[in-house]
Amino acid sequence: MLRTGKEYLERIRDGRRVLIGRERVTDVTTHPAFANAARMYAAMYDMKADPAQRERMSFEEGGERFSLYFLMPKSREDLVRRTACHRAIADFSHGLLGRSPDHVASSFTGLAMKPEVFDSGGASRNQKFSQHVVNFYKRFRREDLFLAYAILPPQGARSPELYESRDRQPPTLRVTKEDDSGVTLNGMKMLATGAVFADEVIIGNILPLAPSQVKESVTCALPIGTPGVTLWARKPLSLSAKSRADGPLSTMFDETDSMVVCEDVKVPWERVFVHDDPELSRAIYIRTPGHVMSNHQSNVRFWAKLRLLVGLASKIAKSNGAHAIPAVRETLGRLAAMEACYAGMIEGQHQGLERLPTGHVHVNRRYMYAAVNYALENHAGICDLIRTLMGGGAFQLPADSSVLEDPELARIFESYWSTLEQSAEERLRLFKLAWDLLGSEFAMRHDQYEKFYVGPSFVVRNYNFMYAPWDELEGLVDGIVAASAQPK
Amino acid sequence: MLRTGKEYLERIRDGRRVLIGRERVTDVTTHPAFANAARMYAAMYDMKADPAQRERMSFEEGGERFSLYFLMPKSREDLVRRTACHRAIADFSHGLLGRSPDHVASSFTGLAMKPEVFDSGGASRNQKFSQHVVNFYKRFRREDLFLAYAILPPQGARSPELYESRDRQPPTLRVTKEDDSGVTLNGMKMLATGAVFADEVIIGNILPLAPSQVKESVTCALPIGTPGVTLWARKPLSLSAKSRADGPLSTMFDETDSMVVCEDVKVPWERVFVHDDPELSRAIYIRTPGHVMSNHQSNVRFWAKLRLLVGLASKIAKSNGAHAIPAVRETLGRLAAMEACYAGMIEGQHQGLERLPTGHVHVNRRYMYAAVNYALENHAGICDLIRTLMGGGAFQLPADSSVLEDPELARIFESYWSTLEQSAEERLRLFKLAWDLLGSEFAMRHDQYEKFYVGPSFVVRNYNFMYAPWDELEGLVDGIVAASAQPK
Amino acid sequence: MLRTGKEYLERIRDGRRVLIGRERVTDVTTHPAFANAARMYAAMYDMKADPAQRERMSFEEGGERFSLYFLMPKSREDLVRRTACHRAIADFSHGLLGRSPDHVASSFTGLAMKPEVFDSGGASRNQKFSQHVVNFYKRFRREDLFLAYAILPPQGARSPELYESRDRQPPTLRVTKEDDSGVTLNGMKMLATGAVFADEVIIGNILPLAPSQVKESVTCALPIGTPGVTLWARKPLSLSAKSRADGPLSTMFDETDSMVVCEDVKVPWERVFVHDDPELSRAIYIRTPGHVMSNHQSNVRFWAKLRLLVGLASKIAKSNGAHAIPAVRETLGRLAAMEACYAGMIEGQHQGLERLPTGHVHVNRRYMYAAVNYALENHAGICDLIRTLMGGGAFQLPADSSVLEDPELARIFESYWSTLEQSAEERLRLFKLAWDLLGSEFAMRHDQYEKFYVGPSFVVRNYNFMYAPWDELEGLVDGIVAASAQPK
Amino acid sequence: MLRTGKEYLERIRDGRRVLIGRERVTDVTTHPAFANAARMYAAMYDMKADPAQRERMSFEEGGERFSLYFLMPKSREDLVRRTACHRAIADFSHGLLGRSPDHVASSFTGLAMKPEVFDSGGASRNQKFSQHVVNFYKRFRREDLFLAYAILPPQGARSPELYESRDRQPPTLRVTKEDDSGVTLNGMKMLATGAVFADEVIIGNILPLAPSQVKESVTCALPIGTPGVTLWARKPLSLSAKSRADGPLSTMFDETDSMVVCEDVKVPWERVFVHDDPELSRAIYIRTPGHVMSNHQSNVRFWAKLRLLVGLASKIAKSNGAHAIPAVRETLGRLAAMEACYAGMIEGQHQGLERLPTGHVHVNRRYMYAAVNYALENHAGICDLIRTLMGGGAFQLPADSSVLEDPELARIFESYWSTLEQSAEERLRLFKLAWDLLGSEFAMRHDQYEKFYVGPSFVVRNYNFMYAPWDELEGLVDGIVAASAQPK
Repeated sequence: MLRTGKEYLERIRDGRRVLIGRERVTDVTTHPAFANAARMYAAMYDMKADPAQRERMSFEEGGERFSLYFLMPKSREDLVRRTACHRAIADFSHGLLGRSPDHVASSFTGLAMKPEVFDSGGASRNQKFSQHVVNFYKRFRREDLFLAYAILPPQGARSPELYESRDRQPPTLRVTKEDDSGVTLNGMKMLATGAVFADEVIIGNILPLAPSQVKESVTCALPIGTPGVTLWARKPLSLSAKSRADGPLSTMFDETDSMVVCEDVKVPWERVFVHDDPELSRAIYIRTPGHVMSNHQSNVRFWAKLRLLVGLASKIAKSNGAHAIPAVRETLGRLAAMEACYAGMIEGQHQGLERLPTGHVHVNRRYMYAAVNYALENHAGICDLIRTLMGGGAFQLPADSSVLEDPELARIFESYWSTLEQSAEERLRLFKLAWDLLGSEFAMRHDQYEKFYVGPSFVVRNYNFMYAPWDELEGLVDGIVAASAQPK
Repeated sequence: MLRTGKEYLERIRDGRRVLIGRERVTDVTTHPAFANAARMYAAMYDMKADPAQRERMSFEEGGERFSLYFLMPKSREDLVRRTACHRAIADFSHGLLGRSPDHVASSFTGLAMKPEVFDSGGASRNQKFSQHVVNFYKRFRREDLFLAYAILPPQGARSPELYESRDRQPPTLRVTKEDDSGVTLNGMKMLATGAVFADEVIIGNILPLAPSQVKESVTCALPIGTPGVTLWARKPLSLSAKSRADGPLSTMFDETDSMVVCEDVKVPWERVFVHDDPELSRAIYIRTPGHVMSNHQSNVRFWAKLRLLVGLASKIAKSNGAHAIPAVRETLGRLAAMEACYAGMIEGQHQGLERLPTGHVHVNRRYMYAAVNYALENHAGICDLIRTLMGGGAFQLPADSSVLEDPELARIFESYWSTLEQSAEERLRLFKLAWDLLGSEFAMRHDQYEKFYVGPSFVVRNYNFMYAPWDELEGLVDGIVAASAQPK
Repeated sequence: MLRTGKEYLERIRDGRRVLIGRERVTDVTTHPAFANAARMYAAMYDMKADPAQRERMSFEEGGERFSLYFLMPKSREDLVRRTACHRAIADFSHGLLGRSPDHVASSFTGLAMKPEVFDSGGASRNQKFSQHVVNFYKRFRREDLFLAYAILPPQGARSPELYESRDRQPPTLRVTKEDDSGVTLNGMKMLATGAVFADEVIIGNILPLAPSQVKESVTCALPIGTPGVTLWARKPLSLSAKSRADGPLSTMFDETDSMVVCEDVKVPWERVFVHDDPELSRAIYIRTPGHVMSNHQSNVRFWAKLRLLVGLASKIAKSNGAHAIPAVRETLGRLAAMEACYAGMIEGQHQGLERLPTGHVHVNRRYMYAAVNYALENHAGICDLIRTLMGGGAFQLPADSSVLEDPELARIFESYWSTLEQSAEERLRLFKLAWDLLGSEFAMRHDQYEKFYVGPSFVVRNYNFMYAPWDELEGLVDGIVAASAQPK
Repeated sequence: MLRTGKEYLERIRDGRRVLIGRERVTDVTTHPAFANAARMYAAMYDMKADPAQRERMSFEEGGERFSLYFLMPKSREDLVRRTACHRAIADFSHGLLGRSPDHVASSFTGLAMKPEVFDSGGASRNQKFSQHVVNFYKRFRREDLFLAYAILPPQGARSPELYESRDRQPPTLRVTKEDDSGVTLNGMKMLATGAVFADEVIIGNILPLAPSQVKESVTCALPIGTPGVTLWARKPLSLSAKSRADGPLSTMFDETDSMVVCEDVKVPWERVFVHDDPELSRAIYIRTPGHVMSNHQSNVRFWAKLRLLVGLASKIAKSNGAHAIPAVRETLGRLAAMEACYAGMIEGQHQGLERLPTGHVHVNRRYMYAAVNYALENHAGICDLIRTLMGGGAFQLPADSSVLEDPELARIFESYWSTLEQSAEERLRLFKLAWDLLGSEFAMRHDQYEKFYVGPSFVVRNYNFMYAPWDELEGLVDGIVAASAQPK
């Protein structure tokens, strides 16, 4: 079933508990900090349900229609289709929604492509976890749900042994009780991006756990409105600009990050996917295509943002009359090269696809992680480059676009701020957008997001290290040494 | 005379016209967007007038006491004293006030150290411009004024010939009428940092003018409240945080940038320093120590910020429990090296001082411009490095510090967010400061400021090019070639 | 026909004139500076003619067998095949032969895929230039020739108008006479990489010419042994190491760069492809797939070298006992990411292929130029990184491997230089290879080669600028501005 | 006593054992690999002994004259004098002799400024080590000796515990026997730069030792010709160019690096400075001004090279006709800024000098280590930048300058290779120098040297970390937090 935007909005009006500082929000669809973004997600659901988008955005199975990001791919064509769907969503949001509904859904679809992995650990309490995964995969796609995840321990609490040595309970979420009906959770998880707007949140562990962290090793799905769950949102960035024109992106696309605090949250067994198995709780992302599929979405999402950035750079150079300066042109050429490099790596992921014994396929894992690394290494620098192209532009413009509403000011503004090629209003709008994307607090949250959404750089490089064909590469050296050891 | 903060505040309550978008502000000392910063400037005046700071902050001449940044230096000791005064001001504001009162005052003091330069152009209307400069130097220091300047044409309007070719008036400020009493100005200048809080603004031209730009080539001083002058402020950044604790820097130190729009502004001749002389209007900064003296202040100011940044990096590393990680320690060592490098370049400016025929001295020009270049090349990267050290820290904290006011939330917050070494409240305060300095809109305005306050990189490098001893350096090559041309 | 190595060697023993300083070389197959490399090219011909390599290295047309790099591709499969052939050749030479026989041959094949371009200029002397191109394409592939090119003016001579203004003849190669039998050439072209070992050299112009450079605008093919042609070779780098073990790469793979000096060289019309047409002489590379096909070979060639570099980095880290250090592991992960990024861009070129109206295809042009830019931006840094991994390793080893020949020294060497994991001899061989690839003069010639083989960075970025979809990218900005201009 | 060059050469003709591969060299003053450099050192001694250089190069004490680098500084003037002497030596060798005679002499002078440090460990065998240090300091300066040092373990042998765990003797130099007459040494030390040309080598430990490395913890001085000492030289780089004109630097300034192998080397107690004290063996460099004084020499030496590099960049830009291109001019300005930055840091070291309780002074330690870090971070990039300015220049020139000796070739060369501004011969000489400094094997040995001469980057950053005023810097953060915690 493909939900409409209206259906989506209704379902998240579920009495969830969200905190902005000490303020308690109960309806995120109407609160000024969240209403615009909620509206955007709803529009995305409408777009997806639109019959005109049928082929691009959904697939059919067993006579039913599902969002395309729930498709388990079996061919290059399937992969290309999935990418096109990610791209449509990313383009819709200009790459600014990191955890758009297709992200965690792709991860979960990947998990469900090798459900037997979930039974590879010690069976707990006679649960058939693989079956839970398959059931929930089917349920999520059938109900067309928006999933978020919270799979990191809080930053200060990553050395459980230290806490133990001082006889203190670490704040990390854990199972504190369990019985035949299910488990009870207490503690905190970070950093549930998008959870404020999602239907459910997946609790889990993307970082390796110590063998002693048995009770932390729980993976499960919670409806956001579950009693005992509170989302502590970070500062909303949708309110910094005075109007949509002054913050065309931040006012509409702040997906919000939250800490998930659980106090005596009861979870039935059917919603539990990993239990009492520290190794498995992390391994599910690696032994299934879960990680590769969700991060391919991240690649495509970043690509959309990169295209916007490159287009913006060109517009700014023109607006500043700098487009013909050789150094500026070289910068634009370099930015265009980066966009093409990224596009090439994404297309290469299809060409170099990998096949599973089950008949499923996924995109080339090495190229995918290389693209993650490329984004990590280059995003901040690209933004800095474009900020440099801006010159002092953003600061010579009025505080906000309300000047346009005052005829006398508007007249002065037009006569002093316009250039030969561009009206003052056009410049204002362009630079407000540029600043929103590159200089606002929203921009800087994105800067941090791009630095850390897969993990810090050493984690990203470790993924690249893990999958490299070292024997083959080192063999090249051995071959030369062997050849040269012979007499000349 | 050394003014008190109270006297300072009274004088700027002069009915000046400041626009925030379409809102007209008349009293900047009480408007919420500006009041805090005005209070900070006032506190700086009080500090300077404090007898305990007498030696560090002022000097005596002719029985009168003046702010030290008006001192015309004649020895290394004078230079060291001037630097110490800049440092006291910079430390007071953590290096966040780029155009603190000692900046333009230093520039004007430098201009007045070689007043004959002002008579080197064609004399206009029998004015003795050198005398105007000396008179105003004496007046500025006697009245202990806070000066700003606006010495750039608006960004879009830098090709006057293009405007002419289309028969359009460029928006740049120019003399539109003149008579025996003085000149009349119309047009716009950017980017008068601090002008909202200053007593007077110097109008001038730091970029070379075309020979045809005779009427733009005016340098003069205007009280901010002069009829016909309007300051169009950029977006105030002091209001983004909910409280001082949530934005400990932005709420207090937003110096504000403004466009200066002049409509039929009358300026008496005594306030005019350059007139009808495109070459001279720019050359005054180079042929006098004006540019070197104001930018030495910029060096010292940047140094204060750099020290705060390095200290913050260390605090963040500790708060995140990362202080002992070798890679983090190496980063901190590298940051410490950068701070020491900068400090060394500033001390070297004293050791390598340059003497003028008049008996005056100024700091070493090459080392000063090298320090400008160093800041330009490294500031954004340093900030990025520290943002990377922050990890997702800023986003796992509550939206604002109001959570501390709600006892129940404060309790939960303390129990989940505290670490073994640090209370949750301490972490909150530290990361709010870090984000304010590195991630807020205020932070990004500083990013742009550090990129452009002396001009874009090619301008900064041109200063470095201009003063390099090319003959000596190329001679090294010639010497080796000559030696090697002989038979071995 | 597929030549054997022996046939190749015989044909280049044609009395060609090659200068090493003042020394005149006539047989490059036996001169110590060139013999090893000649042997390597011959081995490459043998490998290509080996029936076991038939499918990978050649194709059939009209009952005849040709080297695969002469194949005009019509499908993705053809492109994949061409890439595999390039890769076999690149692997054979570890990516160290920039202008291996498949490079210029690919360029010429590309030219011949759109021969009508050659007739688009003014017809000269009733010549059917498109026919010349097709004829020579057929001849080159039939005789299985090794082509080089010399398509740049000498460095000092790029402003012909300056020469003219001083009434001096610029040294650039030009047509100085012409009659019914053909043209006569005088002057110099750079930088004919590989020409010492090639059968023929293509003379041409890859940089735009001024409209006045009519006589420079000649494109033609010359057998290297043509009377009047002299190759002035740069310093041979094959002789720096005392033995193959001391320079396993430089002793074998120095392809040599040469200036081509022509003195009264006569060229029959059938060998002329462009004549008296400054615009066309450059445009042939852009309007045909010539440039894209030759530079795809460059991509594949660079990839081979990159793989060797990454493998070497890992071997060095192990040899130095640094493989388990987190920072080193992160570096290796980063290098692996770069290799995967490059591989992805190459595979992406197939996935994103472009079709010509003629039914031919070529690889995606934007991804190809992006890969060129990536290599240009990263090669020097990668090498620097690996040199850093080497530590002082290269200098603690003996001057050369002759120590192994002296039993007493060999014993001491083994006992002091071996480590727990590696014999002294193994370390010696590994570091000699590393230094040869990264620290020798041969290494630094490669550093320059990778910087300039397509042109300096601004040229490379210009190619990337030219083909970017600016309208689409800028349209993204326009879309957001349009949406935000509406009331919130 | 100030030695003449002749005296210097005679003394190093002492029968020392030097190996080049399997070749045994006994007289380094005549062997072609070393003779030129020996001649250069001799010329440096002559320059130093020249009465005209008396004030700059030497000082008087107790009626005797000593090389200035043995001066124990007591004032800023002394520091400035020492710097001037270092600069004279560095200029003489263009900064290419890293361990010129003033380097280790400065280190030893620093050690002798706090000799009591040597008695702070456990006294061994009733030796008064402080007295040994003072005696040898006096002897070294009296005999005007050239000292080298070898203070690193061999690269593969840095984990002694690993060797022990496998019951193998690590190859590191250690005391293997001791009696009343002295100690006996066996084993290897790296990397004795300059030792081939020095009088004596200091054996020691600049890296921390493990507490168990008692026998490795020996610091002593050995005449190079001591029986049992063999220097295993790395590949000589003085022979790669065909003539001095083809390698104007490498032929003359290859200081050579060597491994020092000791087999049953007997050292009398008077030559031993540290014995059986792992902690002290390393600490002497830190607790005395030894490290700061030797590395200030390194700063000055690097500065000389930097000036040559910047001068060369300008000459190359002019030769290539690129001097007026804006991007090139910006690069030159940037290079000039880097040179001024470095000069400023050196002058700042005087201004910020530090005083010892003994009345001695030394340069500012933090600025000195910051300058080391700056060189480390920037040297490779500067060279890369200049190589980029070179374009393909180096490869379009003939193999060597012998072409000038053949009149016919010289004529052709002049007519084709000259530009409007420069004769072909001048270009040849300039580019041969440029390549020698930036592209030759000699250049790349320098690249490695600048990366590692104080240690790898993490060591350099650790020095910078150690001396940073963390309390003061962190206090800045604390101050802001404290101020902001109060109500707004």
